[in-house]
Amino acid sequence: MKAIVLAAGNGVRLRPVTDTRPKPLIPVLCKPVLGWHLDWLSRLNIDEVVLIVNYMKEMIMDYVSRFHKGLRVKYVVQDPPAGTGDAVIKALDHLPYGEDVLIVYSDIFIKDMSVYRELVSIKEPVILGAVVDRPEHYGVLELENGGLKSIVEKPSQPPSPIANAGVYKLNTKDIDEHKNVGVSVRGEVEFTDIVNGIAREKQVSVYTLPKGWWIDIGRPWHILEANKMALEDLKGSIKGVVEEPVRMTGEVYVGEDSIIHSFSSLEGPVYIDSKVEVGPNARVRPFSVICNGSKIGFSVEVKESVLFENVKASHLAYIGDSVVCENVNLGAGTITANLRFDEKPVKMMVKDRLEDTGRVKLGAVIGGHVKTGVNVSIMPGVKIGSYSWILPGSVVHRDVPSKTVYPR
Amino acid sequence: MKAIVLAAGNGVRLRPVTDTRPKPLIPVLCKPVLGWHLDWLSRLNIDEVVLIVNYMKEMIMDYVSRFHKGLRVKYVVQDPPAGTGDAVIKALDHLPYGEDVLIVYSDIFIKDMSVYRELVSIKEPVILGAVVDRPEHYGVLELENGGLKSIVEKPSQPPSPIANAGVYKLNTKDIDEHKNVGVSVRGEVEFTDIVNGIAREKQVSVYTLPKGWWIDIGRPWHILEANKMALEDLKGSIKGVVEEPVRMTGEVYVGEDSIIHSFSSLEGPVYIDSKVEVGPNARVRPFSVICNGSKIGFSVEVKESVLFENVKASHLAYIGDSVVCENVNLGAGTITANLRFDEKPVKMMVKDRLEDTGRVKLGAVIGGHVKTGVNVSIMPGVKIGSYSWILPGSVVHRDVPSKTVYPR
Amino acid sequence: MKAIVLAAGNGVRLRPVTDTRPKPLIPVLCKPVLGWHLDWLSRLNIDEVVLIVNYMKEMIMDYVSRFHKGLRVKYVVQDPPAGTGDAVIKALDHLPYGEDVLIVYSDIFIKDMSVYRELVSIKEPVILGAVVDRPEHYGVLELENGGLKSIVEKPSQPPSPIANAGVYKLNTKDIDEHKNVGVSVRGEVEFTDIVNGIAREKQVSVYTLPKGWWIDIGRPWHILEANKMALEDLKGSIKGVVEEPVRMTGEVYVGEDSIIHSFSSLEGPVYIDSKVEVGPNARVRPFSVICNGSKIGFSVEVKESVLFENVKASHLAYIGDSVVCENVNLGAGTITANLRFDEKPVKMMVKDRLEDTGRVKLGAVIGGHVKTGVNVSIMPGVKIGSYSWILPGSVVHRDVPSKTVYPR
Repeated sequence: MKAIVLAAGNGVRLRPVTDTRPKPLIPVLCKPVLGWHLDWLSRLNIDEVVLIVNYMKEMIMDYVSRFHKGLRVKYVVQDPPAGTGDAVIKALDHLPYGEDVLIVYSDIFIKDMSVYRELVSIKEPVILGAVVDRPEHYGVLELENGGLKSIVEKPSQPPSPIANAGVYKLNTKDIDEHKNVGVSVRGEVEFTDIVNGIAREKQVSVYTLPKGWWIDIGRPWHILEANKMALEDLKGSIKGVVEEPVRMTGEVYVGEDSIIHSFSSLEGPVYIDSKVEVGPNARVRPFSVICNGSKIGFSVEVKESVLFENVKASHLAYIGDSVVCENVNLGAGTITANLRFDEKPVKMMVKDRLEDTGRVKLGAVIGGHVKTGVNVSIMPGVKIGSYSWILPGSVVHRDVPSKTVYPR
Repeated sequence: MKAIVLAAGNGVRLRPVTDTRPKPLIPVLCKPVLGWHLDWLSRLNIDEVVLIVNYMKEMIMDYVSRFHKGLRVKYVVQDPPAGTGDAVIKALDHLPYGEDVLIVYSDIFIKDMSVYRELVSIKEPVILGAVVDRPEHYGVLELENGGLKSIVEKPSQPPSPIANAGVYKLNTKDIDEHKNVGVSVRGEVEFTDIVNGIAREKQVSVYTLPKGWWIDIGRPWHILEANKMALEDLKGSIKGVVEEPVRMTGEVYVGEDSIIHSFSSLEGPVYIDSKVEVGPNARVRPFSVICNGSKIGFSVEVKESVLFENVKASHLAYIGDSVVCENVNLGAGTITANLRFDEKPVKMMVKDRLEDTGRVKLGAVIGGHVKTGVNVSIMPGVKIGSYSWILPGSVVHRDVPSKTVYPR
Repeated sequence: MKAIVLAAGNGVRLRPVTDTRPKPLIPVLCKPVLGWHLDWLSRLNIDEVVLIVNYMKEMIMDYVSRFHKGLRVKYVVQDPPAGTGDAVIKALDHLPYGEDVLIVYSDIFIKDMSVYRELVSIKEPVILGAVVDRPEHYGVLELENGGLKSIVEKPSQPPSPIANAGVYKLNTKDIDEHKNVGVSVRGEVEFTDIVNGIAREKQVSVYTLPKGWWIDIGRPWHILEANKMALEDLKGSIKGVVEEPVRMTGEVYVGEDSIIHSFSSLEGPVYIDSKVEVGPNARVRPFSVICNGSKIGFSVEVKESVLFENVKASHLAYIGDSVVCENVNLGAGTITANLRFDEKPVKMMVKDRLEDTGRVKLGAVIGGHVKTGVNVSIMPGVKIGSYSWILPGSVVHRDVPSKTVYPR
């Protein structure tokens, strides 16, 4: 079987994370979410992947060529981005007519990717669903006779608690026969319209994941949640050096060439990648991920945060419930506040709209290559654009655009 | 014998501590000062206590009903507050005529409460005195023939170094016969005027405590001093969990269900109540008291301070020579400055008047339910009113009223 | 043999360090650089030292009388300061005519002072040279036939990479015969002009030190470099108390009556003088020197810095690549930034001119008796004048004069 992986989106709602990397390269346990999919597909007898790319495609191609050498990949550039349906239609040219194909949105993360194997083993067309808390925020599966009736986009009255999880196994002939769906209100060709066309004519099975097994990484704080989901199943393992004394509890992973200096605490589940330095006198609390080349120094605490590659927080800092992108340098005394005085859920600007994140504890989202001066305070829900500099002693109350000196 | 305990005052000079609790419920080693008196009285063959209440009387009554179940208590509400003499007169109705009664001001703390037993064993009327450093700030005992001649209020030329310690054993008949003393210049009926009347007619013994054995908790910093007095006699005992390694020196008390995480230092005398979390990497220095449910987190230092219930200082904070009331949340990087640049004694506003506290080292007084943002600096001698919020990065130079956002 | 030691300069370019001490009393491993010279001279059969003094001469005389009792010293006051040549000429009156004399500038530091012994063993007149990186900043030795042709001041085209190291062995007769050199463009009698006169007439040998063996302490950051040079040869030794557990790596010296509290890291080479208190939970990183009576407290990190006597940094501070003079008190949360956002070399004002220090990492120079409030941030390359106070929460962006409250 072949697979189509959709990886073309520009991830506007994930800014500033997507300032410096495409959405499929967002890391979960320090591996791009795309890598999780490709790893799994390569274990599944998939003989070719058609990868739909556009935004920062060179980065994706470079990643795949370096880390997924064994996989046969055909790239299709979707430019301009004209919808998921358009993407799949473009891929059809590269696929045999009348065969089954696995279609995967690369920005989703699934707790246990073995569900792929289940999907593929089903004979009929099948769509993956996931039970979610607030279905009204998703495409929702309306069911009929145990199969799919239709996918309804963000319905105010959801017909089920099952979201469209963005994974399908369909026949290319069926897709081809229903590809003329026109453009949606947002001016794109939607793949869900094609699926709805198929479902009107034949039985489309639904394979449903339980709550907490699936996430669409569509907002910056979803990066915390996807990593948390992966951490819940972490098996601890120490490959680097841990000095004495260090306090470790729970499942702790420390990668090769990493060093944990004395008087530090690692409170699992915690994933520390390779070439990371922690301590002395540091604290890494549960649900934290610290990627390759990062340094968490003296009297620095990290709590439920994801730090990309080469993040440096060398002294007297607190990073809580935050996403910190690659090559960020946090000056001594930099503190992310992660709780409002009124203890209401933190809000975040997402593409010109202030969204309720649903999280009472949420820190900052700090884009790649940002530098903060000493004694900087960053308020809950603030985003700092890539390559920006935050002057020492300042309090960041509002989002900072990229390549900006704040305050100025 | 019966006792009268005066517990009606509204403690204006103890604001903001008395914003959220009456003066008698101010904690010494996490037990209300009133509780210390009642505990002792209950061990002394006192068969009934007449408790004079008014300000926040429900809180007092609730406390007594929960923690002093074995004691027979009769409440007398003194409303409006019309002086200590008025309070005692009101209590007389509930006491047998012609019998001895023990009269206690509930806002005093005595190093060793066994002096009560001594007082009671004396046949004649007796007043408790205490040698103090600056008698001119107190009611002062003038002596004659080894007994009391009179109590002189705040005399510029003190006739002795002995302050009126606020504990008496007198006969209700004597009190009744001298109760018509009129009102003082501050418009109140003073119990000392009644005592002076008795002393003019008969021998009133004086039982004198040595210096450092007694304190009148009349100012916020006296809370530090009363607790320090109690800590001097602390016997260490570990009932909670102490992880390895933790450095402990001196007398350290750790209550039940408390946990001290690794790489922390407890430098006795230190009293840590039950359900307290300390560390990792925290430091608690001598003469500190941390009450029930509080959390002193990572890289937080507490020095010679009293923290009431449920105080949270989770990261990178310094609390020195400070009183922190219940349910306060101190943001990461909150620092109480406790020394002036000029190293002069710290001053504090007490009821519209700037008072010299006599302390070169003194931090802040933080009222109940206050929240401070991250990287907040609080200057020596500053008081923050209950329920106020201090914005991140701010420096608090002056007192903050209650229910205020600072700065605004 | 006798020696002349030049110790009269007022060290304007070393302000604010020289606000409170003359240049010769700048400490290297907590001993004045003058002391290093005198110690060596006293081991070299030097029977008398003529010490040229002027600026803060009482401090120098007091130091010598207390710490170099065994040495015969004759003081010559050079007032007004009229150049190195004038200083040596003044000293001639006190020296036997026709004998060799060792002449030493007291503001230089040499890695291994045994080179003195080599110099003295050479029969002819001899000058010490030192290979340096940027000879154009120094007096440079022009060589001819293996000897000195002349010393050229700060040549744009250096004739060699060898700087004049400020140590000579010459005959008083030669000096006397060439003393009439007039004044230089800067209005002083230059000793180098006298040496050039001698070199024109007779062979003056050159003894050359390899790169990294010599430094002229002419700028504040040279204090870091001189101490670093000395630390490179440090032999560790623990004379004080080191609690358990403490992490020590490399060569660590801890002097008498010093105490290192638990959960601290000493990462050698580190020199901790006597009566110093470190920790608990402190970190002292390589190339740090902490002098007598200082205190590095809880959660304080010191990195590649020199702390003079009685410096107190008691809590939550970071001192990096900085010079901190005597009796400085750094409030909790004081942080010296030591890296520019643009990672260019840090600049420093030196006597009205902004100089490139050549150091990418450089913190602050803090004069004697300075006090900083809590949560103070000090920018790279900033100098704070002696006796100044820095208000809490402030960011010090520019040099602060002495005896100043900043900001005002």
